Amino acid sequence: MRKLAIGVDIGGTNTAFGLVDDLGNMYGESVISTRQYPDFDQYIEELYIGIQSLLKQLDFEHELIGVGIGAPNANYYRGTIENAANLVWKGVVPVVEKLKRFFPTVPVIMTNDANAAAVGEMIYGGAKGMKDFIVITLGTGLGSGFVANGEIIYGHDSFAGELGHVIVNHTGRVCGCGRKGCLETYVSATGIKRTVFKLLADHIENSEFRSISFNDLTAEMITKAALAGDPLAIEAFEYTGMLLGRALANAVTITSPEAIFLFGGLAKAGKYLFEPTKKYMEMHMLSNFRNKVKLLPSGIDGKNAAILGASALIWQRLNEGR
Amino acid sequence: MRKLAIGVDIGGTNTAFGLVDDLGNMYGESVISTRQYPDFDQYIEELYIGIQSLLKQLDFEHELIGVGIGAPNANYYRGTIENAANLVWKGVVPVVEKLKRFFPTVPVIMTNDANAAAVGEMIYGGAKGMKDFIVITLGTGLGSGFVANGEIIYGHDSFAGELGHVIVNHTGRVCGCGRKGCLETYVSATGIKRTVFKLLADHIENSEFRSISFNDLTAEMITKAALAGDPLAIEAFEYTGMLLGRALANAVTITSPEAIFLFGGLAKAGKYLFEPTKKYMEMHMLSNFRNKVKLLPSGIDGKNAAILGASALIWQRLNEGR
Repeated sequence: MRKLAIGVDIGGTNTAFGLVDDLGNMYGESVISTRQYPDFDQYIEELYIGIQSLLKQLDFEHELIGVGIGAPNANYYRGTIENAANLVWKGVVPVVEKLKRFFPTVPVIMTNDANAAAVGEMIYGGAKGMKDFIVITLGTGLGSGFVANGEIIYGHDSFAGELGHVIVNHTGRVCGCGRKGCLETYVSATGIKRTVFKLLADHIENSEFRSISFNDLTAEMITKAALAGDPLAIEAFEYTGMLLGRALANAVTITSPEAIFLFGGLAKAGKYLFEPTKKYMEMHMLSNFRNKVKLLPSGIDGKNAAILGASALIWQRLNEGR
Repeated sequence: MRKLAIGVDIGGTNTAFGLVDDLGNMYGESVISTRQYPDFDQYIEELYIGIQSLLKQLDFEHELIGVGIGAPNANYYRGTIENAANLVWKGVVPVVEKLKRFFPTVPVIMTNDANAAAVGEMIYGGAKGMKDFIVITLGTGLGSGFVANGEIIYGHDSFAGELGHVIVNHTGRVCGCGRKGCLETYVSATGIKRTVFKLLADHIENSEFRSISFNDLTAEMITKAALAGDPLAIEAFEYTGMLLGRALANAVTITSPEAIFLFGGLAKAGKYLFEPTKKYMEMHMLSNFRNKVKLLPSGIDGKNAAILGASALIWQRLNEGR
């Protein structure tokens, strides 16, 4: 009898979910719309039906051992999504409580996307056996999951690990959070777009980006241009890496990780992101830590990484019980 | 039979030690010179003799349950002091191994001063029952102990919690660590002296500090002047509080503590330090955390705090065993 955990990745547009074993193998996956269900009860019912349908398609004996969920603004302690700007449900949504009605006999656990990514890294990825590490997720914003003593740092109110909102420049770029100079205004898919536009303003060189509007520009286009040798794109990555490298050097002085994993779209730029990040991280590192902390790509990056990360919450809970 | 732990505080000049029960009551304390014993074996022997002498003076039945040590540059995992600039012993000193020869049947545990202060806060002080908090020690430098999930964050190599070496200004003040703009170059007894001298340079107003050399100036004198209403001293505290408050707001985004405790000499300035620190911390706080994190004076501050903190390592170990 194969044990399977359900991983659910709740995003603003869609919710992806799948069945995962303890080695990170997926047995079926599916997607429902998130946005189409402003009625949360209806959404949960739809999600339950989707999961049941996946389970029915299995052609082997299995035991369902739990449901792990990754979601923006998730409160791990309370099992709620709280005031998530990009979701259709407003206020505080009792996700775990509602889903537990459909899965009353197994653990239902929810955390935010970046913490789920960190647990995924620990269970299936490059952080196996590590007790102290950091995962940085580079998407529209910058998320982070900090692990110390083998446990996610949730903090007193479950909202720890907001490295994207460490202020790196008090007179810097306006952030969606209402403050100025947060790391994610520089280091994220949106951040590097802003950097490209800053460079277009500062310089006079021609560039393929001069014919593209801010709304049309994507981080993938900047990565592609860097890979093709475009100087402005490379400079944008250099600047991004400087800001990230400095912030990581500061983070290292606080939690002294064994490794830092970069996860998500921007990390796909490979050396264009990793080389400047590593360079500036070591340049600004306190000497005790210099050349000791590994900077690595995520070991589970890929299309199903978010589902894997969410399902890993269940395997981790099981490990703790051993 | 009363259970007692030994707390040992190794400082550059002296080593203070005492016998402490589980409520933080001291039963005898003593001091030996640190500096007079460049021969480490001789130092350990002297320390052992001192402890024995304290134990002999007890007039009640007792059981010795362990030796806790706080020391600069202490490696918790290895039980060593490593390359401590202010101690007479150079290189890596195997403190725990050597002391264990004299106390073979009980745990001997060592950590750095700031972590010992944090454990002390958790066992005897204001952090009783808290799982997530930060202790900031304001002495010649700035030390910090981070607690998450009820445990000190030691990190991969045991040197986590160096908030004093977070860089807050990349073009800022030269730090003893060889870099620029570390928090402790602003926020510490030495840091506030530097701030006073910066203000004397920037302004033309008369001040009692104009007749005092840098070497003669102490943080206590600045505190005293602030309490007496001296505008330059008050401005120096305002500036110190701004730098500390901003750094704490950033630290909160990472570990989301329930409370932050300020410990040590500078914290004695009371509202002159706490008010600006609190003001700038909240001003720069990510909205989730605003007005939620307590900023408190240490609950065990005082002359024996370092001994208490060190002894608390033993009570904490005992608690974990329960």
